[in-house]
Amino acid sequence: MPSFIDFLDVLGVAVFAVSGALVASRKEMDLVSFGLLASLTGIGGGTLRDLLLDQPVFWIEQPYYLVTCLIVAILVYFTAHVFQRRFIILLWADAIGVAAFSVMGAEVALRSGANELVAIVMGMMTATFGGLARDVVCAEPVLIMRKELYATCAMAGATVYVGVAALEASFIISALAGFTVAFALRAGGIHWG
Amino acid sequence: MPSFIDFLDVLGVAVFAVSGALVASRKEMDLVSFGLLASLTGIGGGTLRDLLLDQPVFWIEQPYYLVTCLIVAILVYFTAHVFQRRFIILLWADAIGVAAFSVMGAEVALRSGANELVAIVMGMMTATFGGLARDVVCAEPVLIMRKELYATCAMAGATVYVGVAALEASFIISALAGFTVAFALRAGGIHWG
Amino acid sequence: MPSFIDFLDVLGVAVFAVSGALVASRKEMDLVSFGLLASLTGIGGGTLRDLLLDQPVFWIEQPYYLVTCLIVAILVYFTAHVFQRRFIILLWADAIGVAAFSVMGAEVALRSGANELVAIVMGMMTATFGGLARDVVCAEPVLIMRKELYATCAMAGATVYVGVAALEASFIISALAGFTVAFALRAGGIHWG
Repeated sequence: MPSFIDFLDVLGVAVFAVSGALVASRKEMDLVSFGLLASLTGIGGGTLRDLLLDQPVFWIEQPYYLVTCLIVAILVYFTAHVFQRRFIILLWADAIGVAAFSVMGAEVALRSGANELVAIVMGMMTATFGGLARDVVCAEPVLIMRKELYATCAMAGATVYVGVAALEASFIISALAGFTVAFALRAGGIHWG
Repeated sequence: MPSFIDFLDVLGVAVFAVSGALVASRKEMDLVSFGLLASLTGIGGGTLRDLLLDQPVFWIEQPYYLVTCLIVAILVYFTAHVFQRRFIILLWADAIGVAAFSVMGAEVALRSGANELVAIVMGMMTATFGGLARDVVCAEPVLIMRKELYATCAMAGATVYVGVAALEASFIISALAGFTVAFALRAGGIHWG
Repeated sequence: MPSFIDFLDVLGVAVFAVSGALVASRKEMDLVSFGLLASLTGIGGGTLRDLLLDQPVFWIEQPYYLVTCLIVAILVYFTAHVFQRRFIILLWADAIGVAAFSVMGAEVALRSGANELVAIVMGMMTATFGGLARDVVCAEPVLIMRKELYATCAMAGATVYVGVAALEASFIISALAGFTVAFALRAGGIHWG
């Protein structure tokens, strides 16, 4: 079911782009820096995944991913001041992104012939690298390194996805299982963190 | 006109290497660290560009880029104490590098068949990644994230280059247009910043 | 003598994984973050090397490298509190890793047809990138940038290895020469640093 794959991928890019643009907003940057941070965060994880698996970088082949990041940057630039609690929105956008990319990273790795352990690690990396790059570039405390089960969520999502897929479940079932577990764990982390 | 392409590329590498070596000088590092920072800053942006476009990394094929960085590192090591205002020189070297690499990044991307938007983003990345890596490694405040129109200059240079090239202008005309716009904007940013 | 090559590679990955896990321990992270930091540090340098040389990333082809990092992470997680002076162990693990990877980075580059200067730079990068990524992600002061002859050791090890190999010495002789020089220099740096 390729359309659900594409949906997860675009969803992950878009929500991570939101989180990047919100960091730009917290730091009162200009519009171009919004675009840069939204793109870095949105496409960073998938870029690392594609480089490591030695396949064409996804956003170079399909420029609509970049267009998504830029539209998100513009929308957030003109609306961010409306929202009272931007850091909370950032955390939730980030949570959706982690859940979507932990599944997508593992899926792309499996499809390229990697073994299960490598697929799980690739899921973790895809899910966490964009946010990590965002935080390092902005000299924010790195979200992934706070004691909030952050990396654990990505690992759990990728592991569940790989495990359910190994049972020959359809992509949509495996993906929903992985996404749900990662998101639920992260939501708990945010709520009680 | 390949010779002008090569000139821009070597110019960008050399001036970014100067900026990297000057950071090493500000931090009173040893000679090897001068070489490392000069190389990281000089070849970082082009390396990222080549990895993303899946083409051979330029300095592995042509080692004279590395030699350039190392010569720059040695020259700066033995002369930096002569100059009173090293941070100003660093800023101007960086400005020339950003202008040269915003054009070269976009050019290499176009040549590899990328579309215009991707070429502009590649110009921005090539122009800014070396300096970003330099600042992250040295734990300096990241230059690109200060409110100084830094990323904007790179984007403007790449956009003008791609736009003028789309009008079927020769490389030297398009490149000079892109370079001039990026450098003029950055010069304004330094002067009034 | 391929078995000694493999030994050096696994040794480098394992001791860098120890250093990554020890940083996780100093920061009182959870088990998954131990695994993440051990892997990032253990395989980071070799990953950069393989990406730059455009060859398959070693741990994707051979998952036992990842397994090594994860076992190390678990062992350190459950035993680190036993050791009184974790930072000293971290420094020595890092020193062995730098020595092993300065040789392996140069060797892999030479084997792929790179020239001598590129091979030396690749040795330095392979030896230093894992630790650099570890320190940047954890917002530790970057070890490589302290005035401790850190990068110098990696350069010396790679240079000696390339030099002795150029005299048509066997791999084991060249590798031991490079390893010993790098390790001795670094040991001096730690002892008198």
